[in-house]
Amino acid sequence: MMVIMNANATKTEIDNVVQKVEEYELNPHVIIGSERVVIAASGDPREVDYRIFNVLPGVEQVITISPPYKLASREFHPNDSEISIPGLVKDPGDILIIAGPCSVESRTQLLETAQAVKEAGAHMLRGGAFKPRTSPYSFQGLGDEGLKILAEAREITGLPIITEAMAIKDIEVISEYGAVIQIGARNMQNYSLLRSAGKCQMPVLLKRGMMATIDELLLSAEYILAHGNPEVMICERGIRTFEQSTRYTADINALPVLKSKTHLPVLFDPSHSTGHWEYVLPVALAGIAAGADGLIVEVHPHPEKALSDGQQSLKPERFYDLVSQVNKMAQMMREEPVFAGSGV
Amino acid sequence: MMVIMNANATKTEIDNVVQKVEEYELNPHVIIGSERVVIAASGDPREVDYRIFNVLPGVEQVITISPPYKLASREFHPNDSEISIPGLVKDPGDILIIAGPCSVESRTQLLETAQAVKEAGAHMLRGGAFKPRTSPYSFQGLGDEGLKILAEAREITGLPIITEAMAIKDIEVISEYGAVIQIGARNMQNYSLLRSAGKCQMPVLLKRGMMATIDELLLSAEYILAHGNPEVMICERGIRTFEQSTRYTADINALPVLKSKTHLPVLFDPSHSTGHWEYVLPVALAGIAAGADGLIVEVHPHPEKALSDGQQSLKPERFYDLVSQVNKMAQMMREEPVFAGSGV
Amino acid sequence: MMVIMNANATKTEIDNVVQKVEEYELNPHVIIGSERVVIAASGDPREVDYRIFNVLPGVEQVITISPPYKLASREFHPNDSEISIPGLVKDPGDILIIAGPCSVESRTQLLETAQAVKEAGAHMLRGGAFKPRTSPYSFQGLGDEGLKILAEAREITGLPIITEAMAIKDIEVISEYGAVIQIGARNMQNYSLLRSAGKCQMPVLLKRGMMATIDELLLSAEYILAHGNPEVMICERGIRTFEQSTRYTADINALPVLKSKTHLPVLFDPSHSTGHWEYVLPVALAGIAAGADGLIVEVHPHPEKALSDGQQSLKPERFYDLVSQVNKMAQMMREEPVFAGSGV
Amino acid sequence: MMVIMNANATKTEIDNVVQKVEEYELNPHVIIGSERVVIAASGDPREVDYRIFNVLPGVEQVITISPPYKLASREFHPNDSEISIPGLVKDPGDILIIAGPCSVESRTQLLETAQAVKEAGAHMLRGGAFKPRTSPYSFQGLGDEGLKILAEAREITGLPIITEAMAIKDIEVISEYGAVIQIGARNMQNYSLLRSAGKCQMPVLLKRGMMATIDELLLSAEYILAHGNPEVMICERGIRTFEQSTRYTADINALPVLKSKTHLPVLFDPSHSTGHWEYVLPVALAGIAAGADGLIVEVHPHPEKALSDGQQSLKPERFYDLVSQVNKMAQMMREEPVFAGSGV
Repeated sequence: MMVIMNANATKTEIDNVVQKVEEYELNPHVIIGSERVVIAASGDPREVDYRIFNVLPGVEQVITISPPYKLASREFHPNDSEISIPGLVKDPGDILIIAGPCSVESRTQLLETAQAVKEAGAHMLRGGAFKPRTSPYSFQGLGDEGLKILAEAREITGLPIITEAMAIKDIEVISEYGAVIQIGARNMQNYSLLRSAGKCQMPVLLKRGMMATIDELLLSAEYILAHGNPEVMICERGIRTFEQSTRYTADINALPVLKSKTHLPVLFDPSHSTGHWEYVLPVALAGIAAGADGLIVEVHPHPEKALSDGQQSLKPERFYDLVSQVNKMAQMMREEPVFAGSGV
Repeated sequence: MMVIMNANATKTEIDNVVQKVEEYELNPHVIIGSERVVIAASGDPREVDYRIFNVLPGVEQVITISPPYKLASREFHPNDSEISIPGLVKDPGDILIIAGPCSVESRTQLLETAQAVKEAGAHMLRGGAFKPRTSPYSFQGLGDEGLKILAEAREITGLPIITEAMAIKDIEVISEYGAVIQIGARNMQNYSLLRSAGKCQMPVLLKRGMMATIDELLLSAEYILAHGNPEVMICERGIRTFEQSTRYTADINALPVLKSKTHLPVLFDPSHSTGHWEYVLPVALAGIAAGADGLIVEVHPHPEKALSDGQQSLKPERFYDLVSQVNKMAQMMREEPVFAGSGV
Repeated sequence: MMVIMNANATKTEIDNVVQKVEEYELNPHVIIGSERVVIAASGDPREVDYRIFNVLPGVEQVITISPPYKLASREFHPNDSEISIPGLVKDPGDILIIAGPCSVESRTQLLETAQAVKEAGAHMLRGGAFKPRTSPYSFQGLGDEGLKILAEAREITGLPIITEAMAIKDIEVISEYGAVIQIGARNMQNYSLLRSAGKCQMPVLLKRGMMATIDELLLSAEYILAHGNPEVMICERGIRTFEQSTRYTADINALPVLKSKTHLPVLFDPSHSTGHWEYVLPVALAGIAAGADGLIVEVHPHPEKALSDGQQSLKPERFYDLVSQVNKMAQMMREEPVFAGSGV
Repeated sequence: MMVIMNANATKTEIDNVVQKVEEYELNPHVIIGSERVVIAASGDPREVDYRIFNVLPGVEQVITISPPYKLASREFHPNDSEISIPGLVKDPGDILIIAGPCSVESRTQLLETAQAVKEAGAHMLRGGAFKPRTSPYSFQGLGDEGLKILAEAREITGLPIITEAMAIKDIEVISEYGAVIQIGARNMQNYSLLRSAGKCQMPVLLKRGMMATIDELLLSAEYILAHGNPEVMICERGIRTFEQSTRYTADINALPVLKSKTHLPVLFDPSHSTGHWEYVLPVALAGIAAGADGLIVEVHPHPEKALSDGQQSLKPERFYDLVSQVNKMAQMMREEPVFAGSGV
């Protein structure tokens, strides 16, 4: 931590900060600059809310140095972490491809989609049973019935399933079906849910909130890790900006930033990132080029009839093309790797 | 809804959209412009996810016309709604002032604060027992113990209490203490929680998410209203922007926008909006000038020792000044009202 | 400046940074923390592009401490600076009120507006002769002819005029008419223009860019000051955010932040900040409450016929009300000042 | 244009809007919905500032339908436009690669860089002679002297040069050296400069402002096109968002959006988009994958000594790798093209 004093701070004010630093059992280092004094404090950086030093008289600004997460940090865990997903069949080094509809709408719809994405080369099946919808008047998902349909699709295709938990009780229900738990963007800072996910025995896919910084995303991952679950994958899915021509703005920079900051696998969702099916292919390829370890893509056999996210869902034939191009690009990337490989 | 066709859309594509509009039992109106065709669809606007029309060939863009919320809308409920808070003592027309610490840290801290804010003129006491903290290593609140301390403070001061629920189970626990439920910014789109809040018997204060649009905020209020609870207050508390000199950017425009769009009381939180105690007073006054019905302000007797949000908490003597200036300004505003009055 | 090393930085890397610091004739201070090393460098902070230290091996991050502006800084100039505007008639302590149409459209329109705003109590007349328009097909202003009309309005009403320069050559032309120069939001980082404004003999009103941080705004003011012109007023006019219900988001926080960081007068533009005439009054009052020294407001006698910004222009009668309420609020603010007074 | 009335609008208010539409010689179409009336107006959409309809009583909102640009639009010019750059040697279909230092700092520095980027495979040389710097105390460029050095580098290497104009007078000076004119992000809405660029005889590279929407970018291109210059290339270079771990956020979505909206070549700047050299390679590859027609990359032989942008400049050897990987990826993309090819 660095406490930066006002140019006009008095000696008493400076001494007061030094004393406060010592109260926290940190070591103060007083640096006298040409215009102002800075007090650096060394010691364990995660136990105090350092913004509190802003309250002391004469303090201009407080800057923290160490990243606030530790278990998620690549600095302390240089090697990629390994996530083991029961039932996953995938060559090591391949891009992990998860696909399926936004929502489970019916048995027919899901089984048709599951077969199609399996044939196209997907490794996992996604589909929402519990749906977070902006409007209370929109389709809210089939609930437990949806989970049963997902389980049937898994039996038929052999694809492991991933589905979203919106509340603590959903985690227990989902665990009966042996899936990967998804925590969605709107729940990225639902700490009650993160704690429960940290205590469960399933891998978790944590999506970045549309308004969350990369550090906040890693802190939410840290919640899960710190509560005992080491199997966390994180997913960039677009952030909210002023630009309105796409639903969100894919933060493509976040992929190499995350790969350098954390050892956890980093996935990318080109469907929500763009919100338009026309842009899903080029942006998915961009995600691979930027170093993503996997993709999660919305696919629907009849997008024009989808109960949610139809406008950003690929038809099976377009998804087939996407898998083919993604694999070619992944092959090329493997030959000249920009980053360490995926741990999935 | 308006479906805007490409300049090059074919007659078949246009006919196809018209047919789809009719399938939804809406009335299509085909408008032939100088460059492109637009199909307007009239009928009930809240039952379909209109973005799906984006999927049809030849469609450039889909625009929805009606606000997606109805119960929260002033268009359909022109008069300010009335919220009745048990135990509240306040002159009608007065600005509602809620104050207290970010977190309940100890019995001594809370009782000292409660007495101080009561003396300064606050009408309600705030304090978090369950705390959403960005880092798993930060103080997470006293939980049930904190609620008991809040109840004791209510007994002593007579101030009704408001405290945050982070999970469905919290709502039940809080209801035993008869408080107003707060749903925080990070849970504004936690739909499981919103549904439960809609089924409870207590008034709810819903805070705007840091990256939620005004329409999304009103849709989250609509969730609570649509599940049966008419007692909702909404609160602007700062949005996230590129500007980093303050913690968030107070969206002062949102206050008159909300007052014109909804009949629900609109509160303002100058503490989180700025993140620095020095700016709380001028920005609080700005909120009143812009039409807020109430304020929620963080106060701590010893900000430099606070376990959370110390840097944005006012000391009691500064809060005393704030109440005095707010009341003077409110008096002036009442003489020449910009908006209809508060319903609290 | 603080150079923060990676947790795994080697001794050689650290020594290399120290040596580089010394090459810049700064004093290095090596702080050994529990996880990483930080090298603080004291000395004159404005001559080097410190981000360059990011290039050195083992460096995690570089943080600059001192604000990069000096002439604009209140730290070094604690007293409010005085701007003298030729012909200005205003009681000291009064809020400076500038009003007029977005564009000079015709002699009739401008003279009618000028008389109206004078009667309502405005101290200066605004009106654009050279107009920055987003589309090349929109009305681009009357140019020199517009300046002549402005000069005539000044003769008739006695109100000093302020008008925007979009290019270096405009400054010379405007100076013949003795006005205050406005540099608009889109030109806030047009450094050629800033340099020329720094060399001219007229006061300058510098508007914040819609995407500019407060520090960047003050650095642009510093350009004008550093080139010899001490008469700079700065103006918050709304920033761009994700929220689309208003044209921009008024950064109300910026007003107290600016008042604490700089000694220059701080004005506020509620017309552009909101983009809707209905919201101009409450947001203008909020600006005064938050500490603005003045307002710049768009007024048009027939907004529905305006060639630009009609939707955010007040009719004269509404502007009359605004002045009356602003003055009442200013009177109240003077009695309990939040900040030092205006220097205009 | 669509004028959306309030749910409570009166017949008189509706008639008034219809009459106003007719005054503009547009054709009104009145659509009576279940809750409100919408008046659609067909006719030429570019001559009026439609926001003015917001002023009329009973109007809720005004929506424009047609894109406000026409010359830049792919709808009206389906084929990619061809830009001819004098002296350019490049295989058709190859990605255009522009490289060089941020600023021309000295003859030695520039010639060394020029040789290096030529050898690595760049097609054009970039380098700033007139520099827009945020601080008045930073290096401001060598001016005319810098242009002479650029011309010498062109003579030696045969690479055409591109350099930034910050003011109208710069365009004339630059034209003597026969270069491509760059208009930088901070001048994207400097309309005086855009008009002059429209009247000059050189190709123009127009960079997106850091907070400009895609429509605003295309409108700025439209300024240049409408003033007579058809040779415009546009460039995505990162937008400003809340995320602070990179200098800007590369708007990767903007690449396919721009390719679908305009026939102009679309370039990508991974250096400014990220601000850190470590991220330039993966993000550059992402740009190619997303469909960019070219790249503009900052290269410096000694980044740790650069007078500007050292932290985001590649060393020649790293740039050599980048060109090699970009060309491999471009080869792959050509085999399965996502978009029509480059016109450069």
